[in-house]
Formats: sequence, C-alpha cells, structure tokens
Amino acid sequence: PILNDHSELKPRRPAEEYIKGVLAGNRVILSQAITLVESRLESDQDLAELVLAGCMSHTGNSYRLGITGVPGVGKSTFINAFGMHLLDQNAKLAVLAVDPSSQRTHGSILGDKTRMADLSLDKRAFIRPSPAKETLGGVTRSTRETILLCEAAGFNTIIVETVGVGQSETAVHSMVDFFLLLMLSGAGDELQGIKKGIVEMADGLVINKADGENLLAANKAQVEYQKALHLLAPNRNNWSPMVLTCSSTLPSGMEEIHSMLEAYKTKMQTGSDWKENRKRQARQWMRDTILNLLEDKFFKDKGVQNQLPEFDEQVVQGVIAPTSAAKSLIRLYLQGL
Amino acid sequence: PILNDHSELKPRRPAEEYIKGVLAGNRVILSQAITLVESRLESDQDLAELVLAGCMSHTGNSYRLGITGVPGVGKSTFINAFGMHLLDQNAKLAVLAVDPSSQRTHGSILGDKTRMADLSLDKRAFIRPSPAKETLGGVTRSTRETILLCEAAGFNTIIVETVGVGQSETAVHSMVDFFLLLMLSGAGDELQGIKKGIVEMADGLVINKADGENLLAANKAQVEYQKALHLLAPNRNNWSPMVLTCSSTLPSGMEEIHSMLEAYKTKMQTGSDWKENRKRQARQWMRDTILNLLEDKFFKDKGVQNQLPEFDEQVVQGVIAPTSAAKSLIRLYLQGL
Repeated sequence: PILNDHSELKPRRPAEEYIKGVLAGNRVILSQAITLVESRLESDQDLAELVLAGCMSHTGNSYRLGITGVPGVGKSTFINAFGMHLLDQNAKLAVLAVDPSSQRTHGSILGDKTRMADLSLDKRAFIRPSPAKETLGGVTRSTRETILLCEAAGFNTIIVETVGVGQSETAVHSMVDFFLLLMLSGAGDELQGIKKGIVEMADGLVINKADGENLLAANKAQVEYQKALHLLAPNRNNWSPMVLTCSSTLPSGMEEIHSMLEAYKTKMQTGSDWKENRKRQARQWMRDTILNLLEDKFFKDKGVQNQLPEFDEQVVQGVIAPTSAAKSLIRLYLQGL
Repeated sequence: PILNDHSELKPRRPAEEYIKGVLAGNRVILSQAITLVESRLESDQDLAELVLAGCMSHTGNSYRLGITGVPGVGKSTFINAFGMHLLDQNAKLAVLAVDPSSQRTHGSILGDKTRMADLSLDKRAFIRPSPAKETLGGVTRSTRETILLCEAAGFNTIIVETVGVGQSETAVHSMVDFFLLLMLSGAGDELQGIKKGIVEMADGLVINKADGENLLAANKAQVEYQKALHLLAPNRNNWSPMVLTCSSTLPSGMEEIHSMLEAYKTKMQTGSDWKENRKRQARQWMRDTILNLLEDKFFKDKGVQNQLPEFDEQVVQGVIAPTSAAKSLIRLYLQGL
C-alpha cells in the first residue's frame, strides 16, 4: 500500500493513459501521476496539467483531514490507529505527508513502514511519503494536486500529515476541511513548542497517550484545554473546537474522534460553510500560485539576473533605499519583456 | 513634539527642499516628508523616492528598537517612561507606531498625547502616529522609510511600537535591531494571547507592572520565563534573550533595560552581526517590495482584470485546477505586456 514511484527518468505515458488509470483506481498509475505533479521538469509539469485537467470533474468528494503536532506526540502511531479505524468503517483512505525538512530518500518507504506498521501492510490504504528534499512551497504545491489525484482515484478520506516545520501547518490548514492538533498531557504549552497560532487554527485537539499512568493527566489536560479554547476567538465557520483524548496504542478514543469529524462535517454542510471553505481555499491556491510564478519568472529573467547583484550591493551598503532599488528593477524587467 | 502633517492635499515642495530640511533636523519638513512616503499618490511616491535618495547617505546611524506586547500590557506607559529615561541620557528619540487596525483619524494626536503624557510634551522627542486605516503592507512600507527619514534628521534612537495585530510583529521584527516583548506576570502564556513565535523573535522580555502587590509575582515570572527561554532554539546572532522586570509608573528598571540594549549592541558590533542583520533586512525589504510591485501590476492589468472573474469562477467550481488557472492567467498577462 505504500507506493512511491521512482520513475523520475522513466519514459512517460500519454496524458490519456494516466487519466484513465487514475480514474480506474489503478494505484501504480496513480503513483506515477503523483510523481508527475511532484516533478520539476517542465515537460512533466505540462503533462501533469493535462492529467489534472482530465481528473478535475472527479475531484472534491473526500474528507480532507490535516493532522499536526510536535515531534514525539505520536503522530504516526495515531495515524496508524485512526487510519485502521477508518478502514474498518469502510473509508477509502490515502495518507500524504508534508515534510519540507525531510531528508528521506527513496529508502523512506521503509521509514513509513515502521512508522505506520498496520496501515502500511493494509492493502486498502494508500500511503504516499513526502517528496524528498523539497522546499515548503514545492511540497505544498504538489500535495494539493496529489489530494486531487487521490480523490479522482476514488479515495474519500485523505489524511495530510505535517511535522510542523516553518509554515507547514498554515499551508496544510489551507488545504484541508478539518485541522486536527495532536497534543500530550503533562507538558505546558511552552514545553510542547506549540505556537499559539496553531491552536487557533485547530478545529479539534486530541490529547494522545491517554492510557496507563497518563490517563488522569490526560483527562485533566482535556478540561484545561477546553477552558483555554473558550478564551480564543471563534474558529472558522463558528465551530467550537473540541478537545478529546485517545490512546493510539490501546487503541481507545478513535470512535469519538471519528464522531467529532462527522459532527463537524454535518454542521458545515447544513449551511454552505463546507463549500465556502473549499472555494476560499481554491481561490487562495490560485492566488498563491500566481505569486509564485510571477516571482519565479522575475528572478529567472536574464536582465534581472544581470542587474540584481549591483542593486543588491547598493541596497546592502545603504546607498539606495530598498524600495527604490525594487522599483528600478521592476522597470528594467518590464521594459525587457 | 507630536507632528502629524495633514497636508495630503497641500502643494509639495521641490525634493531639494525636503532633503535640506530633513538633514537640518527641521521637524515640520520631516513631518511633511513622512507624509510623502505615506501617501499613495503616484506623484508623491515619485517625489518621496527622490527625497529618500538624497537622504540615504545620512541614514543607518540609529538604534532601531521594536516594542510589542498584547493590549493592556502597558506599552504606551512603558514607552513614555523608557523614552524619558533615554532622553535624560541624551538620546535623540523618535517614536513610530505600526497599527494597521488603527481607526485613528487626524484627531489621533490627542490620543498619543494621553498615551504618552510626558514624552508628548517633551520637545526633545519626535512622535509620529501610525498612518490611519492602512493595510499592514502599507504601514510597514512607510514605517521603514520613516525610520530612514528620522535617521537622516538626526534621531539616533527609533522606537517602533506594534500592537500585535496579524503579522505586524513579524514585520516590525524585520526592521529593527532589537525586538523587545513586554509582558505581564500572573497570567499564563495562553491567557496573554502571545503567540509562541513572538517569544521566539524577542531579543529581550520585560515584565511590566513589577510594583506594589505585583512585585513578587513579577520576580517569579522573570525566573520562569528565563527558564522557558532556555528551552527555545538560540536567537538570531547567538544572543540569549534576557528577561527583566520594570515598573513604568514608579518608574523602575529602566536603567537595566537600557543596559541590556547596550550590551546587545556591543556584543553584536564586536563581530559583524549588527551589520549583517541590517544587510539581511535591507535585502529582504527589497525583495518584499519587488513581490508587492509584481503582484500589484499583475492584478491591475486590464487583461487580467477582464479574465480573472471567469477563471475564478471555474476554479471555485472545481472545473479547472487552481494551478492551471494561474498558469493560464500568467501566460495571458505576459503576452499582453
């Protein structure tokens, strides 16, 4: 079930074959299509665009769930346990990872096999590791498209895992329907290294490792976090984030978490919030891509590349104001187009 | 000492007059020059660029100090007390505010007179309120240039105050040499609404209101925050952020805070950290401006404005992938230039 296609240099199929394969739920072809959207080769990107275009009308029909939490909180074990619970409820589950810091190479698959022992052996699940050594922008761009491809392939539950490096939580928050923050009891907010902004983004908090000696502390933390959350401004869509506890090893609490997700969806779909959220995200995604492309084209421009070092030097030496340098460079760029 | 020039519609001077006036430390002309950099009129912006160019060789010679903290922490009272202390040490002090949420109109000057009672009456200080009703980008762009103008006018200590709305702390952090976070004792980190990221940005924490019944709690908080800070990753330039206490009303602790600032400067200037930080900031500022301008020109393009609604609709309806829409729009834009 972990399929990471290594065909970066393999010959490509015609777009039609990818589309047909993805829509038929063929996992080998799905993996190859994901490799296309992850590729930085221009020819691959053009092909990926065609493949996506052919899949678009079959996308959108999934529950997109983001999961974050600091290292050590037990994200993998949780996703393993919760993923198994979802599979037993007949969910068609895909798990994607956003980890710009990842040094994983192709051997990373073994890493995921250890990380999610049961899921990785279960044929019903599809696990796709993070593309290795990418920038955050690159990872999130391809993750968004990977979500679409998985949906087109028939997966109705997509878990996007983030390790919380840099702005990755914000990025994942902007591509999911529900953003779940995994926490531990017994440690203060500071000690867990959780940025306040993350708590504010969460649609639900789950305190992991609520078992054995930790049980009491977990229940106490649950009450405290619930209180603290009341102090925060209302969440998106007027949803009051819930705080639950679970044990990923027993496992316990999985049903409650699942119920929370369903309650959220029901509430959001009663009004137009679910759709509006998706629309907002799609619009923001288009906008982000536009800005990325504009930046990319500017800094790859030959004229800009020739002039930038001198302007840079003058700016750094305080000879010209950064704003003036920027304006001059833009004028040069637009004249040269 | 609070000078907010209201000449948005007044006739302008030739650039030379502004430059001469600013360099001579003429506060009326300094205020008018700041109004120019704050103005959105293109003619004003062109004039401002000339004025800045003429001032650049006289900039950079100040201590740029950013101050943040949640509402209620006593920022104004602190700046008032600390500002008076600095003036008594012969500092030439300018105070700028970054407050994108500000609903202040021209009457705001009265607000600042109340907020900083002593400073606002002291002829040695120069206080410039935040431009009213600006976006964050607008405020921070003009604040950066206002810093330069104040430096050219001979101010050697610039305090930039931020109210902590949105990303304003990050913006202010990127334009100052030292970033000071003002806090209160007795309240947990959560309760104070301080984002963890802000604590990580701070070069120094000051616990305010360390007087009367609060003294004990403040001293205790000092120890606790100092401990917590040790858990964080090292600050920029390997500086270990200090935690101090003060009372802005007594006042007390002002000398210690001043000493901390001087110790920081000495350490940074022993190596090349001070200069490198400034260089990095200037470079980032140029880059930010470039991106803002690229975005601005794109979205103001007639062709883009004509096509955007349809693409937007198709993206929102899930007919085309956001990435594809972005690429198509960029192609249209570049062809039309």
